[in-house]
Amino acid sequence: MSLLFFQIASLVISLLAFGAAFWLYKWVEKQPSSNAKIAEVSKLIRNGANTFLAKEFRTLTSFCIVAALLILVFLPSPIWKGDILDNVTMAVAYICGTVFSGLAGKIGISIATIANVKSAETATKGIKPSFMSGFRGGAVMGMAVVGSSLLGVTLVLLITGNESALLGFSFGASSMALFAKAGGGIFTKTADIAADLVGKVELGIPEDDPRNPAVIADNVGDNVGDVAGMGADLFDSNVASMAAAIVMAVAIDNKIGGNTNVAMVLCYAAIGLLASIIGVLTARMKEGGDPTRALNSNTYVTTALYAVLTAVATFAFGFEWRIWGACVIGLAVGVIIGLASDYFTDDRKPPVHAVAKACESGPAFTILSGVSYGLLSALPAMVGIAVSALAAYNIVAPLAPDGESSLIYGMFGISMAAVGMLSIVGMIISNDAYGPIVDNARGLVEMGGLGDKALEITDSLDSAGNTVKAVTKGFAIGAAGLTVIALLGAFMSEVNTAVDEINAAGEKVLEYITGFDIMDPVVFFGLLFGAAIPAVFSAMLMLGVDRNAQRMVDEIHRQFKDIPGLKEGKEGVKPEYDKCIEIATKGAIRELIPAGLMAIVCTLIVGFVGGVQAIGGFLTGNIISGLLFALFMSNSGGLWDNTKKYIEAGNHGGKGSNAHKSGVVGDTVGDPFKDTAGPSINTQITVVSLVASLTATIFLTISIFG
Amino acid sequence: MSLLFFQIASLVISLLAFGAAFWLYKWVEKQPSSNAKIAEVSKLIRNGANTFLAKEFRTLTSFCIVAALLILVFLPSPIWKGDILDNVTMAVAYICGTVFSGLAGKIGISIATIANVKSAETATKGIKPSFMSGFRGGAVMGMAVVGSSLLGVTLVLLITGNESALLGFSFGASSMALFAKAGGGIFTKTADIAADLVGKVELGIPEDDPRNPAVIADNVGDNVGDVAGMGADLFDSNVASMAAAIVMAVAIDNKIGGNTNVAMVLCYAAIGLLASIIGVLTARMKEGGDPTRALNSNTYVTTALYAVLTAVATFAFGFEWRIWGACVIGLAVGVIIGLASDYFTDDRKPPVHAVAKACESGPAFTILSGVSYGLLSALPAMVGIAVSALAAYNIVAPLAPDGESSLIYGMFGISMAAVGMLSIVGMIISNDAYGPIVDNARGLVEMGGLGDKALEITDSLDSAGNTVKAVTKGFAIGAAGLTVIALLGAFMSEVNTAVDEINAAGEKVLEYITGFDIMDPVVFFGLLFGAAIPAVFSAMLMLGVDRNAQRMVDEIHRQFKDIPGLKEGKEGVKPEYDKCIEIATKGAIRELIPAGLMAIVCTLIVGFVGGVQAIGGFLTGNIISGLLFALFMSNSGGLWDNTKKYIEAGNHGGKGSNAHKSGVVGDTVGDPFKDTAGPSINTQITVVSLVASLTATIFLTISIFG
Repeated sequence: MSLLFFQIASLVISLLAFGAAFWLYKWVEKQPSSNAKIAEVSKLIRNGANTFLAKEFRTLTSFCIVAALLILVFLPSPIWKGDILDNVTMAVAYICGTVFSGLAGKIGISIATIANVKSAETATKGIKPSFMSGFRGGAVMGMAVVGSSLLGVTLVLLITGNESALLGFSFGASSMALFAKAGGGIFTKTADIAADLVGKVELGIPEDDPRNPAVIADNVGDNVGDVAGMGADLFDSNVASMAAAIVMAVAIDNKIGGNTNVAMVLCYAAIGLLASIIGVLTARMKEGGDPTRALNSNTYVTTALYAVLTAVATFAFGFEWRIWGACVIGLAVGVIIGLASDYFTDDRKPPVHAVAKACESGPAFTILSGVSYGLLSALPAMVGIAVSALAAYNIVAPLAPDGESSLIYGMFGISMAAVGMLSIVGMIISNDAYGPIVDNARGLVEMGGLGDKALEITDSLDSAGNTVKAVTKGFAIGAAGLTVIALLGAFMSEVNTAVDEINAAGEKVLEYITGFDIMDPVVFFGLLFGAAIPAVFSAMLMLGVDRNAQRMVDEIHRQFKDIPGLKEGKEGVKPEYDKCIEIATKGAIRELIPAGLMAIVCTLIVGFVGGVQAIGGFLTGNIISGLLFALFMSNSGGLWDNTKKYIEAGNHGGKGSNAHKSGVVGDTVGDPFKDTAGPSINTQITVVSLVASLTATIFLTISIFG
Repeated sequence: MSLLFFQIASLVISLLAFGAAFWLYKWVEKQPSSNAKIAEVSKLIRNGANTFLAKEFRTLTSFCIVAALLILVFLPSPIWKGDILDNVTMAVAYICGTVFSGLAGKIGISIATIANVKSAETATKGIKPSFMSGFRGGAVMGMAVVGSSLLGVTLVLLITGNESALLGFSFGASSMALFAKAGGGIFTKTADIAADLVGKVELGIPEDDPRNPAVIADNVGDNVGDVAGMGADLFDSNVASMAAAIVMAVAIDNKIGGNTNVAMVLCYAAIGLLASIIGVLTARMKEGGDPTRALNSNTYVTTALYAVLTAVATFAFGFEWRIWGACVIGLAVGVIIGLASDYFTDDRKPPVHAVAKACESGPAFTILSGVSYGLLSALPAMVGIAVSALAAYNIVAPLAPDGESSLIYGMFGISMAAVGMLSIVGMIISNDAYGPIVDNARGLVEMGGLGDKALEITDSLDSAGNTVKAVTKGFAIGAAGLTVIALLGAFMSEVNTAVDEINAAGEKVLEYITGFDIMDPVVFFGLLFGAAIPAVFSAMLMLGVDRNAQRMVDEIHRQFKDIPGLKEGKEGVKPEYDKCIEIATKGAIRELIPAGLMAIVCTLIVGFVGGVQAIGGFLTGNIISGLLFALFMSNSGGLWDNTKKYIEAGNHGGKGSNAHKSGVVGDTVGDPFKDTAGPSINTQITVVSLVASLTATIFLTISIFG
């Protein structure tokens, strides 16, 4: 089959995904809703989310224009040296990456702010319709993200025929994700922490109480952080994994002739999307069923479907079975990493019980034991990623023709493991976006006064969302890990292409880069420097949340003081919700810029000091410590969240006990860990990898020690 | 000058150090003491410390015997293959390493448990004599540790003439340090946390109140953790830095003939000790002076003296100026890292103020901001280590003869930077051991009822100890960082010696290892796996402290319940101090074994899976994440400690305020961070590096993917 066949098939399947998204959107919209109070609140949430998004997009537009201009002038090679058309292509691809990512986020927000209402109101009828509204709302987001990533990658490839342009597209997606994830993460935790701190801790009013001026901002935060931010993050990983695999597939195809490998990457990615579409559309839950089990079984069905369909395709199109093997290993390890994360955060497992017990001795013990289990939880995932990379490399490396270096084949194997791990990302996003929707629904049930039964139902849906989140987060981090390892391969491949060009131009005679030797002090310098970046990046984000939450707390105090009757809940008295939303929005945007720039600027500094070799070390150090911190922070955050809920369920004294107070401290610490810093590290790693790949040419010729 | 001259000079200077230690010991002993109550308490502390040490040594003896037997059979090569004499030498060197380390610890404990009394009782006379007792007590430890490390290294070299035996000696020191530091760290924090939790938090009685059953255990902990443990740690780093430098110096000398480089290593190390002796003996403080300034100025005097004396020696003996340069860079960067640590932990600097402010919003904010600043604090040190390694490598590398690889020269440069950084370790230990001595003195003043003026004096001495600790800890971590990078060079050098032997024996034909390529999937596997180890190791230690503290809290509760009149402070009623000491002792030993074994076993697993290349990656991953976690944990721990003290000094509401309560939570979390997990990571890294170096031969021939 020709490459064109697979390109067209990919386009068709992407459009199918959009079709499915449209159908699901309409289905959700058709669900009944009539409560005026809920309609009012939900409008506030929708407007808040759109305000944030508009403001964020405006800021990002300036950033993107600057970046696009820089790309136009300097990449893939300075405009006065190379072909100007290449630079235009790259810049346009970059802009497309940002637009596609933004679009997916926008669609996600639109549906999430409808589905929350539907899930809330159908909860009065039973768990099944409420679950389906939440899940299908999330699925719209899942389909939109994966559909647009496959569509974008295929279109860029089809139109430009240039795999480097894919890196530009991916960089667009990535820079968008960095800000969307970090900005959304700061917004959501600012509001969450401030609302809890004044509401629950100081005044003792329940969560989602409409008297709390931060309550709408909190619900907006769920949407902009967990829906839009998470979508941008996985859009980014998904595009990056395809881009890395295609860059290496092209390098291999160029050697052996033909374009089988590129075709295979597209074919596998398209099948992943197809499997997700089927999984999403067939997902059901019985009345009275267990929502956690329903969500997880969807994932397993999709996984199995993917393994079988790719095997069929491999047989039918005569692809290499070894590459299929790498792909399936990625998928399997993804599931294992997810299960490990689940073990450390599930409230039926020993770690949560141990931390809950420690809560009895006071908050310091909550923190110490949570940090400890969080650190332990990194081991299985790190070893899992290590083993899958090693296995995928060794499975595919023998495909190298005799006498040729097997490196590029091995790295291609790793990138295909990443593609495999991310193949079911459509399903993952659906499950993930389900979480904030039902979380919102719970708030709407409370604020709309829909009664205890509906509250109980949305509570159980919310708890399922939290549990499944651990699995999907582990998955996302594992996938990002393999992707960035693959990007390291893409980086080297790009560097060597540049070496060819420089040598052809006859300016200098450079040698090919064959690897990065740890014993080279420049590489070691990069390793140490790169390892510090995720730590600094997450610290900057957390301090941002901290500062911003302080500002919002002051505002809440002011409102309770200045608005008569608010504290007492006098009929007709409403807090100024929009003030809190404004603080969260402004603060998030103000705090995210320095952290993102820091990571990019450090990459450039290291490049100028140590050249390409230092960058290789820098990327590696950054990947390693980034994965470690992302796992540690996400898992300990999830662990504390579930510990608090476990205590609230009546264990160790239940609500109001000393253990519960300690649990709340743990949860508050865990919030920015798991929803701001931890997941943002993923995108930080990807951005740095792509910046390095794109600027490789420059550092080949300009550096101090390189 | 011949090598023998420098060996004899080193022996003489080591003996001088012992002479100085003896003189200082006698001086401290001569200070007046007469208070019977203090004598009684101090006897309890001394006995407790000796009980712990005896028990720890007994457990370690079994461990060391097993290790020595394994060494005898397998190292440097299996007994049935190589020369049996080599194996005996290695085993004996190993045992000597453990004995020397143990001896230094024992001397430290003996003097510390005298000096605390002297410092307490002279506090009634003024700050000067109290300071001098504390400082000179610490200096005994400093002289003993550095004297015995130089003595041991010189003797091993003189007697065996075999530089590999030095790695055996170093491994002995290292395995001792791993257990002494981790065991002591668990002991001290178990007691500290348990005492605070019941005493200060539950009952509201002051620190060091004699009614508290854990109070003696707490004071014992200062000695076994901060004196003996810290001494073993720096003994280990000091020996390892010399061993790594000598292994590479020998490799260079073998190539170029002569033994100038080995001589130079000894010469520089001996001058470092000499400078420390002079610095220690001339240290003074004016009555009414600032103890922090006195301690720091001692360090700067020693540093300057060292730089000058080594320059003179380099000129006089015709050593290479480039190597001197590497040494001085190490020293300078050590000072910079120390200052950076100081910035993040000093209560006159913004980070402490920001965390103290955050304390007003509750404990969760104390933790979040402390974690953030701790993470930020890693950047200057990581970059500092990276830059110094890069600079030292590039300064020394040009010494390589034309056409020869400069790698070993460059790595030798890095090892000399480590030697330079550790040159003033005698002074560092003196300052560091001063801390727990005056901390103990403060407790004795309280328990002996020596009055408010004495309490104020010892309080100010204690606070100076805390401040200086930050600088010395930064120094220790930086030095360990450079040392383990140098050990990576020693590892490769050892591997290549083994390659020579295997090839000579004609069993297999192996190629030399010239580096570790990150793009080799086996190396990458090692990197990811190795990076997870420090996280797991520190988590295991912290969980150990947690479990052990729970046991002790139960015991304290039991005593307050079962012993009538204890809570009310009835005359003549005493708690059963020894029960708490026993719990801390047993628990520390029980909890430290699994963590230490885990690190060693993982090294072996990685070796069996991926061979020497995987080990190279493993060591690197381990070093990078180890440094990051050590810096993060030590600095955030120090930051929380000083934040609490800053609030207690009357800021943000002072003692008893909500901010203070949050500060106490931060301090409790920080305690195992900074005194158990953080500093133990240093020794964990060194142990793993040495295990790898020693077992390199085995993994050259046996491994799955290697």
